[in-house]
Amino acid sequence: MTAGGPAALPLQARSFPGLTTPLARLAARCGDGVAAIDGARRLTWSQLLARIEALAGALQADGLVPGDHVALLSRNSARMMEAIYGTLWAGGVACPLNTRLAEGDLRAQLAEAEPVILFFDDAAAETALAIRDAAPSLRQLVHLSDGPHPAGTQGHDTYLARSVRVPDVGRRGDDTAMLIYSGGTTGRSKGVMLSHGNFWANAMNVQFALRPDATSTYLQVSPMFHVSAVARMFASVINGAAQVFIPQFRPDLVLSEIARNRVAVTTLVPTMLRTLVEHLRRQESDIGSLRIISYGASPIDETLVRRMVEAFPKVDFWQAYGMTELSPTATQLGPEWHRPGPGGMARLRSAGLPATLAEVMIGDPGDSPMPAGETGEVLVRGPMVMKGYWKNPRLTAEALRNGWMHTGDLGYRDAEGFLYIVDRKDDMIISGGENIHSLEVENAIAAHPAVAQCAVVGVSDPHWGQRVHAVVVPRPGQAPSLEELQAHCRTLIAGFKVPRSLELRDDALPLSGINKVLKTELRRQAEARQAGAVDGTGAE
Amino acid sequence: MTAGGPAALPLQARSFPGLTTPLARLAARCGDGVAAIDGARRLTWSQLLARIEALAGALQADGLVPGDHVALLSRNSARMMEAIYGTLWAGGVACPLNTRLAEGDLRAQLAEAEPVILFFDDAAAETALAIRDAAPSLRQLVHLSDGPHPAGTQGHDTYLARSVRVPDVGRRGDDTAMLIYSGGTTGRSKGVMLSHGNFWANAMNVQFALRPDATSTYLQVSPMFHVSAVARMFASVINGAAQVFIPQFRPDLVLSEIARNRVAVTTLVPTMLRTLVEHLRRQESDIGSLRIISYGASPIDETLVRRMVEAFPKVDFWQAYGMTELSPTATQLGPEWHRPGPGGMARLRSAGLPATLAEVMIGDPGDSPMPAGETGEVLVRGPMVMKGYWKNPRLTAEALRNGWMHTGDLGYRDAEGFLYIVDRKDDMIISGGENIHSLEVENAIAAHPAVAQCAVVGVSDPHWGQRVHAVVVPRPGQAPSLEELQAHCRTLIAGFKVPRSLELRDDALPLSGINKVLKTELRRQAEARQAGAVDGTGAE
Repeated sequence: MTAGGPAALPLQARSFPGLTTPLARLAARCGDGVAAIDGARRLTWSQLLARIEALAGALQADGLVPGDHVALLSRNSARMMEAIYGTLWAGGVACPLNTRLAEGDLRAQLAEAEPVILFFDDAAAETALAIRDAAPSLRQLVHLSDGPHPAGTQGHDTYLARSVRVPDVGRRGDDTAMLIYSGGTTGRSKGVMLSHGNFWANAMNVQFALRPDATSTYLQVSPMFHVSAVARMFASVINGAAQVFIPQFRPDLVLSEIARNRVAVTTLVPTMLRTLVEHLRRQESDIGSLRIISYGASPIDETLVRRMVEAFPKVDFWQAYGMTELSPTATQLGPEWHRPGPGGMARLRSAGLPATLAEVMIGDPGDSPMPAGETGEVLVRGPMVMKGYWKNPRLTAEALRNGWMHTGDLGYRDAEGFLYIVDRKDDMIISGGENIHSLEVENAIAAHPAVAQCAVVGVSDPHWGQRVHAVVVPRPGQAPSLEELQAHCRTLIAGFKVPRSLELRDDALPLSGINKVLKTELRRQAEARQAGAVDGTGAE
Repeated sequence: MTAGGPAALPLQARSFPGLTTPLARLAARCGDGVAAIDGARRLTWSQLLARIEALAGALQADGLVPGDHVALLSRNSARMMEAIYGTLWAGGVACPLNTRLAEGDLRAQLAEAEPVILFFDDAAAETALAIRDAAPSLRQLVHLSDGPHPAGTQGHDTYLARSVRVPDVGRRGDDTAMLIYSGGTTGRSKGVMLSHGNFWANAMNVQFALRPDATSTYLQVSPMFHVSAVARMFASVINGAAQVFIPQFRPDLVLSEIARNRVAVTTLVPTMLRTLVEHLRRQESDIGSLRIISYGASPIDETLVRRMVEAFPKVDFWQAYGMTELSPTATQLGPEWHRPGPGGMARLRSAGLPATLAEVMIGDPGDSPMPAGETGEVLVRGPMVMKGYWKNPRLTAEALRNGWMHTGDLGYRDAEGFLYIVDRKDDMIISGGENIHSLEVENAIAAHPAVAQCAVVGVSDPHWGQRVHAVVVPRPGQAPSLEELQAHCRTLIAGFKVPRSLELRDDALPLSGINKVLKTELRRQAEARQAGAVDGTGAE
């Protein structure tokens, strides 16, 4: 009978709007309202729109056609916001590069992305000039800072001044909006293609949970080459909310900008939160306007949460779990789980519940759903899932096989549906036939009072296959022994999970561009030392 | 350069979830929470889920396969909610029929929709049995009321009891969820196919504006064969909010259910609002829990709004404009425009601003955008736009041409982006070469103190092409003359728009199933009378 019916028409009429769609609405509706604040610089929605239209005109005059890539190498600023929206307005794809990467990595990304324009700021000027030849596709370098621009580049304001304002090209829905190179703690970084619709979906998820609105001035703290920061930029514009930019995280600056601009919402990573809480103990600040702090990137311990709640008694805390490929939010842990209650803050170890538009499944190796309590790969689907990896259809097909995004994270859900992340799939150690989650071992070691920082990796071992190897940065003046840590761990975790070798380091653990410990690097070093020890070159 | 890149993978991983997705989450997360209240009957999320799983099992046992249609002919009830969700859970498409339609219309819809199951309640039992033979596809009639079921049909509870609970078939995204026959004030009604994603998009729009949440118990007043009522049912489940059902609008029942169940949100049509306000004047009621009333279907006058605000001082009023094909909301007029302010309530004539996910354009006959202030057809696009008309690819292609839903409404936008609906395209009168919007003439006539109700239609005229013809229901004891109304109208509108003929009626104007005046009927009657007068059969 009715399973057939007429074929659905093309999706054009029913796709998500463009990320630029709210701009003209806001300029018409509240043109004199504040859109962006950057130090002494303030832009109204009308001013912002006019500059975006002019920048898009300049980009098109330089030959940009819809789908072209535009690279950005800059610290956070309102000018960076203008450059991203100008690119989208002109039909381009914005590709923000991680300013913390080495030149070699940036050259590789530039060569692969083939951008036609590169925006850069003063802090990145030297690098920009040094790497420009990696992309012969580059037609123009545009300087996003206030002062004079280097020879052979264009100044932002003069670039605008000589151009004609153009209408929105009108890309939307499934059209690519951003190409973001994902840090990736393992292997080479991948260019994640995110569509206009992807960021709209994320804005809906965030809106549903956090409920910011047009009066919720947002403070951009995390660098905007991260998906979470640009996603919040888009969400703030969709909300009609002003946003405040600071070039980098500095606790005094964060607090003074909150006070000066009556900031209501911000996003931080736990390390920033920790610093901010410490700072607030020493310096009185007017943070009365603050209503919401969301944080992500890594879980958080109860001690820090207690201090956070003490330092920001009127603030609702939200934890988010996700990844670049998910634009980025998949799950959220709401404020009620950050308040001490009957069961304590037992849920704090959890990454929370699926965001409204996200479906989360724990999949077995064949991508079949696993029951509550069992650990498998975290799979996610929904309108926030990326289009794919740039120039890597094979990896795209693998990541999106069976209609789910394969996060590479291992986790489980409890009976109520809360997600717990156990480990990165790649960080799981198989020792003596047993699966060992490095995160669990790390949590055990981290609880030892002599330990400041630690990481656990699997190192190849003739007897065990892989051996649990701990890398520990001790607290000042401390030097815990392997035996001491083993004894401590045995009180917390199963014997077979206890580390079998130990390396003490004075310097901090190597971090990726997104502040994740580079375990591949630790593993490589440990293997090299081991090989050296075996063949007698005697490193260790 | 980069316009190419790898082709996007199938959309499967990044489509909207299914409408059934929140059910399992809610049952896991707060299984004992209230999902539905219907008189003395209360269902928790766990109970609701169990009944839906069992109903889906029964439907599948009766041979329902994904995409099959399931018709419903019932007044509002929790059982009707179960039947819709059970259908979706089993992979079917729910097709609620308008209980106010004549048997002939219902037979036509049933024959066209070819449902495999028909759910009906006591009030519709006679009709259901009378029309069942119109669809040979029907395998089962299931009775949705408490008492005994008619011979040859199944009782709801026994139907469930003999079945096996089945897992969610998992339809989602662009899969059709509902087939809703749109009332249509002109021509034959059309079966509008709405997808799971369509209703998710509407829920996001509603959520963004109205901000109801899990604690916002919703009262279902409008009949659930209307898109707005089912859309709110889906949105309430997405919010995790309980909903209360009443079989039909009765002011005392609405008020007592609000008080009894601490209702926070409801949706009404202006005529219901008017009745409710009158009723509240005579009878004290505890409406302290009410926070939001949204209304739609027709604009509202300032006098009624003043009374509404007086009667419900703590309630935020939202007006919505839309249509079945838009799932249904396209624009919204927020609470701030319902409060007396400096410019009075000048915006009340407006249909408001585009919903977050909706793009609204005023199009000329070639679908090019028209500037602010100019009147053209209202075009809408976004993820809430229907898939198409059932078994009518030609009409679908026409309605969705150029990637926009053509609403058939004429309107304009002001400089700030507020939408004003001027007329139905089909109701525009062309008289002496001038375009006349019947709505404008109706508003002028309605302002006359002797007029209770009126409608204006174009009647063919040898001299004018079309003549402005007014149909007026006078207030009791009144009988305004054509000349009197003409003189009154000339003080308000241009001379060529003033009605040239008048018909006084004692009975109310004929209404469509969705309470819109049937202008086609009025026009037909006027033309018939005119023809009769001309050929001497002498009706008028």
